[in-house]
Amino acid sequence: MSKVFVTGHKNPDTDSICSALSYAALKQAKGVEAVAVRLGEVNKETQYALDYFQVEAPELIASVEEKQAVMLVDHNEPAQSVDGLDKAELLEIVDHHRLGGLNTANPIFVHIEPVGCTATIITKMFDCQKVELPKKIAGLLLSAIVSDTVLFKSPTCTEQDKAAAEKLAVIAGVNLKEYGMAMLKAGADLGDLTPAQIAKTDSKPFSFGKYKAIVAQISVMDTADILAKKAELVAAMQELCQNEGYDMSLLMVTDIMEESTELVFVGEPKQLIADAFGKDASGDSIYLPGVMSRKKQIVPQLTEAAAKL
Amino acid sequence: MSKVFVTGHKNPDTDSICSALSYAALKQAKGVEAVAVRLGEVNKETQYALDYFQVEAPELIASVEEKQAVMLVDHNEPAQSVDGLDKAELLEIVDHHRLGGLNTANPIFVHIEPVGCTATIITKMFDCQKVELPKKIAGLLLSAIVSDTVLFKSPTCTEQDKAAAEKLAVIAGVNLKEYGMAMLKAGADLGDLTPAQIAKTDSKPFSFGKYKAIVAQISVMDTADILAKKAELVAAMQELCQNEGYDMSLLMVTDIMEESTELVFVGEPKQLIADAFGKDASGDSIYLPGVMSRKKQIVPQLTEAAAKL
Repeated sequence: MSKVFVTGHKNPDTDSICSALSYAALKQAKGVEAVAVRLGEVNKETQYALDYFQVEAPELIASVEEKQAVMLVDHNEPAQSVDGLDKAELLEIVDHHRLGGLNTANPIFVHIEPVGCTATIITKMFDCQKVELPKKIAGLLLSAIVSDTVLFKSPTCTEQDKAAAEKLAVIAGVNLKEYGMAMLKAGADLGDLTPAQIAKTDSKPFSFGKYKAIVAQISVMDTADILAKKAELVAAMQELCQNEGYDMSLLMVTDIMEESTELVFVGEPKQLIADAFGKDASGDSIYLPGVMSRKKQIVPQLTEAAAKL
Repeated sequence: MSKVFVTGHKNPDTDSICSALSYAALKQAKGVEAVAVRLGEVNKETQYALDYFQVEAPELIASVEEKQAVMLVDHNEPAQSVDGLDKAELLEIVDHHRLGGLNTANPIFVHIEPVGCTATIITKMFDCQKVELPKKIAGLLLSAIVSDTVLFKSPTCTEQDKAAAEKLAVIAGVNLKEYGMAMLKAGADLGDLTPAQIAKTDSKPFSFGKYKAIVAQISVMDTADILAKKAELVAAMQELCQNEGYDMSLLMVTDIMEESTELVFVGEPKQLIADAFGKDASGDSIYLPGVMSRKKQIVPQLTEAAAKL
């Protein structure tokens, strides 16, 4: 049998990369010839984690061939997954997102839990399946949890995520807070990112009613630098809408320290933003105190507002 | 909070009843106010298991009210589930069937495995979650596995189902083969079932291409008695199609001892049957040696044939 690919979603974040590597390791321990792959560039935060724990990034692939055996982590919606999935052999899904309408011809393994991070579920699987957690894998899983929960500050974070992270930090041999802050800081380093790159950071496509939107998120220690370039960002987001056929482009500029988000937006209808968040949306951004989670605090609100528009 | 309902599918079989009772027990052990419910009559096989282990049948419900918290076992397709599910609060799914296109607004707990029986998954959950299996619950879970795998003869049966059943038999204090045969025999007792009742035994609705079909299955120790009444069965199945708007009605008369199925059918197009099983389908039944599983040996073949018709 050829190798089984384990992949996270397109435009991968730390959970998609680290959970793919960790789940492949768990499968290997169980005798499956699994190999982690990735569908896009490794971001700075993820690279910090890979470097720290001395793990190679998964191989980059653009699509899968017919009949390729595939396991999905950190996503289950076909639109967010690898090209060619419809002709591939989907074996397993491990995820923490909503069920996105997937149909399969035969029963497959699906494990989805409403926790803050896929890595939390995989941590429990190592335990349940009685496979010892290697130090490096513990480090990767910990990094994913720190990333997805923004060091436990996100409203998506559950007690299970915290408990898993504390256990993993011991195995990985790191101080949870120190390591977590250093990793988040590495990810928050804008460095030489262009406005076009920022507009697509950690972005995912969504349909809100009849409107197609792309929602990106960048997490920083201080929003001042990035918001000073708002005009350039808005121009890049307008270009993104035109080039890729979106009605709207949204960018969450999330302040990790202050636990708030400046939501920058272009496109129409702006009424959708106004209705979803109860704010004046006639400008090109709104301030949302306490908002850190796209999944819990942005997408459901826009979905609901679109249904009523 | 009001109680959480745990339910199997409509027209419940032994897995749907016993897994609902067992999963409710697991949830109760974890502090959730869960109660098993059922969506239809208890069949003779299931009643034998309930009587043997002295457990009351779950409460019969017709539908759920808006916002009712619900957990599904042994199914995930809305068409097979409780009426009102679209307005209820779906919390969890534990199943062993194909993914049927369900969409949820928020992440929920989903655990699906390609094993022979939902009860096998629930048995592992008791282990993973370190909850001791009560004797009665072990008996119910064992009964479900014996039923769904036809005492390990079904091609859907996996090593995991066997291992779980062997462990459960010890806890339940029964001889696996003796108890299993006695339970299957109780289920195979046609007793005073009318042809109309036989035509709907363990039936589920399916769409094969543009054709709506209902596929029932009755498992017996010897098919002679039931096939002697084939003309009456065919008449009842024709009536069923007319009354409930199906294009076709199929009945698997499965011989547990011989491990074969006589597939009785009415409606059009009969070409679908001919193509699916490579047999002359001009009559009203075909003999299928080795066929015991609707899920693996009937539904995929009809689905594929319909796609090519």
